Amino acid sequence: MKIYVAEQAGFCFGVKRAYNLAVKAAKEEKKSVYTLGPLIHNPQVVERLKNSGVEVLEDPQNAMKGTMIIRSHGAPPHVFEKAKKLGIDLIDATCPFVKKAQKCAQALEREGYEVLLVGDKEHPEVKSIVGHLKQPAMVVGAAEELSGWKIPRRVGIIAQTTQSVANFNKIVGIILEKAHEIKIFNTICNSTINRIESARILAQKVDVMLIVGGKNSANTTRLAQVVKEVLPQSYHVEVPEEIDPRWLEGKERVGISAGASTPDWIISAVITHLQSLAGAKEEEVYLLRK
Amino acid sequence: MKIYVAEQAGFCFGVKRAYNLAVKAAKEEKKSVYTLGPLIHNPQVVERLKNSGVEVLEDPQNAMKGTMIIRSHGAPPHVFEKAKKLGIDLIDATCPFVKKAQKCAQALEREGYEVLLVGDKEHPEVKSIVGHLKQPAMVVGAAEELSGWKIPRRVGIIAQTTQSVANFNKIVGIILEKAHEIKIFNTICNSTINRIESARILAQKVDVMLIVGGKNSANTTRLAQVVKEVLPQSYHVEVPEEIDPRWLEGKERVGISAGASTPDWIISAVITHLQSLAGAKEEEVYLLRK
Repeated sequence: MKIYVAEQAGFCFGVKRAYNLAVKAAKEEKKSVYTLGPLIHNPQVVERLKNSGVEVLEDPQNAMKGTMIIRSHGAPPHVFEKAKKLGIDLIDATCPFVKKAQKCAQALEREGYEVLLVGDKEHPEVKSIVGHLKQPAMVVGAAEELSGWKIPRRVGIIAQTTQSVANFNKIVGIILEKAHEIKIFNTICNSTINRIESARILAQKVDVMLIVGGKNSANTTRLAQVVKEVLPQSYHVEVPEEIDPRWLEGKERVGISAGASTPDWIISAVITHLQSLAGAKEEEVYLLRK
Repeated sequence: MKIYVAEQAGFCFGVKRAYNLAVKAAKEEKKSVYTLGPLIHNPQVVERLKNSGVEVLEDPQNAMKGTMIIRSHGAPPHVFEKAKKLGIDLIDATCPFVKKAQKCAQALEREGYEVLLVGDKEHPEVKSIVGHLKQPAMVVGAAEELSGWKIPRRVGIIAQTTQSVANFNKIVGIILEKAHEIKIFNTICNSTINRIESARILAQKVDVMLIVGGKNSANTTRLAQVVKEVLPQSYHVEVPEEIDPRWLEGKERVGISAGASTPDWIISAVITHLQSLAGAKEEEVYLLRK
């Protein structure tokens, strides 16, 4: 059996940065270190951070004195303000691309557009972006949700950084039919686009695909959905043990991709597990990554 | 045989206005009256205007003293300037919606966007719009024409007023994949949208469709294309005599739509001709128009 790892897979720039900031804080700080909500959507990474001394808090009200890390998805301004009032030190690990999306949303509001965000309204990134606006924004995950919405004349559109361009475009198309003026900031990050693109390419060349990452990770889930459209024999796994040996029966080539919140050590563990299951030799593992 | 005329068909607001301005000028002016290029893209209307004393000039240089009418499609500023220099009186019959598209294009350029116009680069309306810009604009008729174009970071997009929303949207979708910031003015006019929509609805209820209007009319041609996708038994005719009686053989319901540059008297002539060919009685003609 041959194992191929997609050219672009695993930790993106923003996640790597957030992870490093958290590890550094745990090493350097004498007081307690917390992240507000899990730092990234990968339970294994969060567990490892916990072992290094980084706790997860859901409510800043419960924070004792210490250092609070704002996770990669960002947070609305009131969280920063509250933490300051409570005398909690802050480390802002918001992904710079999420920060940019927050600024784009604010620019659209300032210019008088009704802001529409293409994304999942329950996702912390989306909450952090719309939380930066004065007015409530329209959040739409799928084109169907637009039915019944009276589309305003001037609409400003942005996306959750992990959206697929296809979904973004579908929603823009519907707005385009009714609105007179539309301003769009394409805030989908390159990591998302590149991971999707290289996973699709790989999926066309293999017999089975494994998409590795948190089940609670928006970008991994979307990656898995897109890949499944190309290759029905695709499976989203969080840890190596989830791999069902029957998926590999009679398969010659296995492809691996991983979301932006999946660390290298889980990708490596999946490769090792695959080798033990199917007996692939070292020289049969192809890292296509640049 | 039953004959149905689409709810929205024939002269639109801008064409009606231009036609009335030309007829009025011919009546009132003692000097020669010219249009710069055909007033609208309907040869029969242009012929009728000629009989009323409105000539067609292709080059303002050749104009004698008199009154020049700027047609519904508009003209670039240099045409206005040249006419003034030559001492020619001007009547500006530019469609207000085309004028708006010119202003939208200028606004996009002023705000620093690279301007992209979705339309036919040879069409006088498109020339009049891009003629209002300081920099050359990118004009794209179909998505395929974008291949090889290095899409800039900031793109401002407008459309020829007679484009279909579907084509506009297809091109926007491609730009969306690469550009960071897009500002769109949807300059497709309501007349275009409504004529296409009501023709599509009618086409689903009849056995054969006739789309009436100038063969040189962009909006009539597009209307005919869209309707043909719904009903293959659709024919674009300019005058009643083009109707082939075989098209009507065994057909019970005939639908009629007409472009924005098609006058009522041609639609009426088509109805009368159909009645004489297929023996439809007066009470079998249904004008769905509001």
